[in-house]
Amino acid sequence: MSAILNPKRAVSDMKTLRGLTSDEQGNQRVAFTPTWLKALDFLKGRLDEIGVPYRRDAAGNIWATLEGDRPEFLAIGGHLDSVPNGGWLDGSWNVMAGLEVLRYLKAKGKPPVTIKLVNWCDEEGARFGRSLFGSSAFSGHFKVEELRALRDRDGIALVDALENVGLKLEDAPKASAERKGCLAYLELHIEQGPVLEEKGYPLGVVLGTVGCERNLITFHGLAAHSGSTPMHVRKDAFRAAGLMAQEIYRIADQYKGVCTIGSCVTKPGIVTSVVEDCTIALDQRQLDAELLAKMWVDAQSTAKKIARQLDVDVAFSGLWRIEPILFHRELQDFCDEAIKAAAGKSMRLPSGPLHDAAEVCRAGVPTQMIFVQSLRGISHNKIEDTKEEHLELSVQALANLADKTIPWAASRARR
Amino acid sequence: MSAILNPKRAVSDMKTLRGLTSDEQGNQRVAFTPTWLKALDFLKGRLDEIGVPYRRDAAGNIWATLEGDRPEFLAIGGHLDSVPNGGWLDGSWNVMAGLEVLRYLKAKGKPPVTIKLVNWCDEEGARFGRSLFGSSAFSGHFKVEELRALRDRDGIALVDALENVGLKLEDAPKASAERKGCLAYLELHIEQGPVLEEKGYPLGVVLGTVGCERNLITFHGLAAHSGSTPMHVRKDAFRAAGLMAQEIYRIADQYKGVCTIGSCVTKPGIVTSVVEDCTIALDQRQLDAELLAKMWVDAQSTAKKIARQLDVDVAFSGLWRIEPILFHRELQDFCDEAIKAAAGKSMRLPSGPLHDAAEVCRAGVPTQMIFVQSLRGISHNKIEDTKEEHLELSVQALANLADKTIPWAASRARR
Repeated sequence: MSAILNPKRAVSDMKTLRGLTSDEQGNQRVAFTPTWLKALDFLKGRLDEIGVPYRRDAAGNIWATLEGDRPEFLAIGGHLDSVPNGGWLDGSWNVMAGLEVLRYLKAKGKPPVTIKLVNWCDEEGARFGRSLFGSSAFSGHFKVEELRALRDRDGIALVDALENVGLKLEDAPKASAERKGCLAYLELHIEQGPVLEEKGYPLGVVLGTVGCERNLITFHGLAAHSGSTPMHVRKDAFRAAGLMAQEIYRIADQYKGVCTIGSCVTKPGIVTSVVEDCTIALDQRQLDAELLAKMWVDAQSTAKKIARQLDVDVAFSGLWRIEPILFHRELQDFCDEAIKAAAGKSMRLPSGPLHDAAEVCRAGVPTQMIFVQSLRGISHNKIEDTKEEHLELSVQALANLADKTIPWAASRARR
Repeated sequence: MSAILNPKRAVSDMKTLRGLTSDEQGNQRVAFTPTWLKALDFLKGRLDEIGVPYRRDAAGNIWATLEGDRPEFLAIGGHLDSVPNGGWLDGSWNVMAGLEVLRYLKAKGKPPVTIKLVNWCDEEGARFGRSLFGSSAFSGHFKVEELRALRDRDGIALVDALENVGLKLEDAPKASAERKGCLAYLELHIEQGPVLEEKGYPLGVVLGTVGCERNLITFHGLAAHSGSTPMHVRKDAFRAAGLMAQEIYRIADQYKGVCTIGSCVTKPGIVTSVVEDCTIALDQRQLDAELLAKMWVDAQSTAKKIARQLDVDVAFSGLWRIEPILFHRELQDFCDEAIKAAAGKSMRLPSGPLHDAAEVCRAGVPTQMIFVQSLRGISHNKIEDTKEEHLELSVQALANLADKTIPWAASRARR
């Protein structure tokens, strides 16, 4: 066996997996379902062919181990699970590309450090609303009691879904033992956004995952009869929300982040009354923690200013927040070189969505991600797609990055 | 008995009725309930005291008849029913004031035309969602089959609620026979809006009830990930609705009407996605049919302009519309004089809400309404209130208007 990387083989594997796990509505590899198990079996079959042993940890992550001179290891990962009616690539492409790189590294001969390919369990959280299941168990950010209450739409408990595939919820935190000896982590991922396509780059260096400030803003006006209330005396909570919907574009521009109002609820919500209460959900993201904090401060003062202007009140309530997670500086430079060597050019960009890589990074493991261009930025949808040539380039870039990271990791293992 | 009008007696009657039919949450005279029957019994008791016979028509309207020289009649009316937790005055004040005017007219001696005091059945439609029950039966705008399906929140059918008080739905249209000989109709009503208070007038001449254009506007953008979608490529349906929420104030001002966006529904409506579909309900009202039509044309072209500007689509769907209903020109002048004689000054204004008077007017009966100032314009709420001095002035104005209308009606009867 010669040490020749065959990116086309990864694309071919990907197509085979799609054939096994999709229907007319898209890919159906939702975690803990029979279709997901079929995808895992496909992976195991390929690992058997390559001759790399694998095992499942306490959180359902699958680890394939290519033994090196030292037990400390470089991990390369992804997730085979998808959302319902999902795209064919998303997380699975990481695993297929990783599999090809594993083949390539095995053919090169025993590496100086161990190489592990990991398939994280339930990254999407599509069924139980809790994403990053397996990687958070690995990183130690896993609270059994919070997860025990989770049920799917049919009322089936996560606990039972796990038991059905031979896993015990209370054992999942034991997966954190897998961190021992982990020198670095690499992850390839479809961008799930339009930036690389728009800028004309097949591949990009991911700077980190952006932080997120998620809050509810409620404007409180006064219900009044649609027919008998003159315009100038109205206290119209919806009008205030409507102004806020414009201002978030100014805020996003000013702090180079993104802001989204994804939902709006009006009360009393009837056509014969001015809106008394209007609650909007504001999601703000930035890679820089300080700028992110400023974005939220600006949003609050803007909302207050609008409230004064329209003679309504305003209140805020926190929904969720997470700090930005920055990937490894040295690995970023390796990644930039690896991409340039494969595709001739490279750009750096943050990731809007969270990924397993963020969990691994949070646990202190030097981490780096490569993004692959996504057509029209469409994600979590059966029409998600990426040019095959870009898929092939991404396998090459991942192999290049592994080639650069292995000696770096080996030198750290020896320290 | 001397022909002296006693407005304080009407206020006293009103307070007695409140004592009989309200609780801590407000007035509870919802049509077809025991509390409403109690209010009807109170009215009947007063009519017995005055010595004016009464009867119920096929739609549950109560007609008290003061016989005149001619059988053709002037009607004065109102409605004792209220919304749940309603204000103490609203429709009931019309009946109490009308009762006092009836007392006064009876004391004056046999009038040249017959005078009828009418209590319309279920003006509010609070329980079955169909307002103007009795007056629409009178006017002939009553479709039995449409009403047969109506049920209240507890699943009780309107048909059964009617039967419970001895009425048959299919007989209700027979109430249209009551129109025969109706020369004119007068109605006093609490304004249910803040205009008279703001302008400093105790009473006002009602020009008519405004027409209403009620439509759904749906902006259609593109769902996209909150984290990974740059602001400048978004097709944000909520942003479009937010701009529309500002533009309706410009439209209302331009065409001297009112516009209300009372509800907003976002899809997918989740914080992690740009809003793909945003549907708002737009209610537009104007007394002038032509201007009303222009308001809706402007709203549509404005929505289309916003859609082009934000690269989203827009669609429209009609909810409901009613033409403006203009009251009688000569009676309006009488009304203006009657109010000036009572309160020293008068203004003319349209009515935003519909009233029984609109139904009567639609049937071709010369109709006129007087509005009484409402404090803070609050309506359909237990804190609804009006200054007692204004209530008293309104009884005087109604009596003045009746005094002017009776000879006019008599001259028309003789034609």
